[in-house]
Amino acid sequence: MITGLAHIGIAVTDLEEAIALWTKVTGGKLVHRESVTTQKVEVAVIAVGDLRVELLAAVSEDSPIVKFVAARGAGIHHLALQSTSAQPELERLKKAGVRLIDESPRDSAENTRVGFLHPKALGGVLVEIVEHGKP
Amino acid sequence: MITGLAHIGIAVTDLEEAIALWTKVTGGKLVHRESVTTQKVEVAVIAVGDLRVELLAAVSEDSPIVKFVAARGAGIHHLALQSTSAQPELERLKKAGVRLIDESPRDSAENTRVGFLHPKALGGVLVEIVEHGKP
Repeated sequence: MITGLAHIGIAVTDLEEAIALWTKVTGGKLVHRESVTTQKVEVAVIAVGDLRVELLAAVSEDSPIVKFVAARGAGIHHLALQSTSAQPELERLKKAGVRLIDESPRDSAENTRVGFLHPKALGGVLVEIVEHGKP
Repeated sequence: MITGLAHIGIAVTDLEEAIALWTKVTGGKLVHRESVTTQKVEVAVIAVGDLRVELLAAVSEDSPIVKFVAARGAGIHHLALQSTSAQPELERLKKAGVRLIDESPRDSAENTRVGFLHPKALGGVLVEIVEHGKP
């Protein structure tokens, strides 16, 4: 079951500059930093009240973020929806005819399990289904 | 003061199709529909838990949504941040050197007052500052 927003992912070209900008504009705070080597990104999370803004910078030339920025420019990259359980959610969506990138969830930042839907399945929006790890 | 997310705005080409798709994928519910004639858009809001997804379709060829879709394709259009008061927020941002589209808030959907920041001010992300009307 999808219960709401997990975070908004934003593709940036300079992570330090983006952290400075987002904290200045929103008044939010940097609450997390992490390298996600499987996805070739460096992640910084800005908390603005309940909202989590996930800034994503490429750490190598073959990072998906490099391709995204080349194709569409820096900006909003994905919308991450919170799920109580990612695997049954992805199965439900597949059965409903929704095109998936990941048929099974994989490990990601902040001890989560995640799976992406294909952007063509949702009118150009890249959606990530996120299951937070058990504490 | 910015307190969190108001909604995520998504540019769509077919509003009925987008409503069907978003409710199917997220399990969310259609909670609001409105024509915002000043912005030449038809709006439908899908609530997914606390998250509000604002689907935006053009109602005329000179709608900003037509230009956006032509330039970047359908997809996430803007990030709307909740503010306790839009006018002082826009003034604070202007003083901080943030480039604005609207220096004063204007009326928008669901009895709100809104002002947009320039996407170049936030690394390609179009941000809307939203003040909800008094009940």
